[in-house]
Amino acid sequence: MVIQEQIRIQTRGRNTYNITGEVSEAIGRAGIETGICQLFIQHTSASLILCENADPSVRTDLERIMSRLVPDGDPIFDHTLEGPDDMPAHVRSILTHMDLSLPISQGRPALGTWQGIYLWEHRTHPHQRNVTLTL
Amino acid sequence: MVIQEQIRIQTRGRNTYNITGEVSEAIGRAGIETGICQLFIQHTSASLILCENADPSVRTDLERIMSRLVPDGDPIFDHTLEGPDDMPAHVRSILTHMDLSLPISQGRPALGTWQGIYLWEHRTHPHQRNVTLTL
Amino acid sequence: MVIQEQIRIQTRGRNTYNITGEVSEAIGRAGIETGICQLFIQHTSASLILCENADPSVRTDLERIMSRLVPDGDPIFDHTLEGPDDMPAHVRSILTHMDLSLPISQGRPALGTWQGIYLWEHRTHPHQRNVTLTL
Repeated sequence: MVIQEQIRIQTRGRNTYNITGEVSEAIGRAGIETGICQLFIQHTSASLILCENADPSVRTDLERIMSRLVPDGDPIFDHTLEGPDDMPAHVRSILTHMDLSLPISQGRPALGTWQGIYLWEHRTHPHQRNVTLTL
Repeated sequence: MVIQEQIRIQTRGRNTYNITGEVSEAIGRAGIETGICQLFIQHTSASLILCENADPSVRTDLERIMSRLVPDGDPIFDHTLEGPDDMPAHVRSILTHMDLSLPISQGRPALGTWQGIYLWEHRTHPHQRNVTLTL
Repeated sequence: MVIQEQIRIQTRGRNTYNITGEVSEAIGRAGIETGICQLFIQHTSASLILCENADPSVRTDLERIMSRLVPDGDPIFDHTLEGPDDMPAHVRSILTHMDLSLPISQGRPALGTWQGIYLWEHRTHPHQRNVTLTL
């Protein structure tokens, strides 16, 4: 049995957005007890991560270290058509994940206690993002 | 057909732990000839990687480069509640993988000759880690 | 229903190689309308990425930033048996992806408009690379 649906997320620019609720609801609607939930983001400048979900400073720290590893406006980049965050957004997406597969147990995503599913918007401007769920 | 089981690994602190044997045995027990084996670690400070399995210096070198990219005790981190390795463990997990999908061929994980499956413990203290296998 | 096939790619050394066509053709041959396509590279010194497919400078910039994060010939590396690009190739593979799962919709990989599937050869010399597709 394969069920596919789309989750649309309107971002307000660079930040992490918790989508655990949307994913859990889609699994609940499908009525699947045991299986795999495959998430896929159809973009190259936003990504999917599993991150600690209790202390918000984890996600601001994550933003800081990523900005140091892949700085906006770095002079080594030629691809700057859409601004100083254009190429860094592609690199950040590739260094993290555009696909994510989660086990489903007892009708829910089998996440650890501290795991949340986040969409990470890497562009500074707001974007409409599309995630495909395949169950 | 979906089979799910848990692998529990007791780590002795920051290091890589070869779990290829445990994964192969679970696939063997399930009796699946062709398919997909999905691994998922239910933590945010340890991760799953595929790594060269012949020369142990690959894994010590990996540890060194990761310690340089994401140093313990870096002053940019606010989330230091559990010590200088707390936030770096989250970043290392996100830069590597919490999920891993492997093809199964002829009843075994279809790994390349030099590929081994490792759990990478990022915390300096020992931890009990849980990996969910969905076949 | 599970279908498995091999894609063989002869690389000409370090570079990105678009394999979107090969993957789409395999999905077409299998005749699967809705499902998951799992890609797996059976090597530890080449990887699979989803990358912007319009402007080639994205991929040259990607090469540059990766060469800065994980430089060839870095003196911290002990594992240098096969040359200065040996250990960096392992690290680059782990920081990107050896597995990739894509949704299949309407008989095709459900990629975003700007997403292409690339094999990233990290060794400077040409290699024969093997990717397993499980549908």
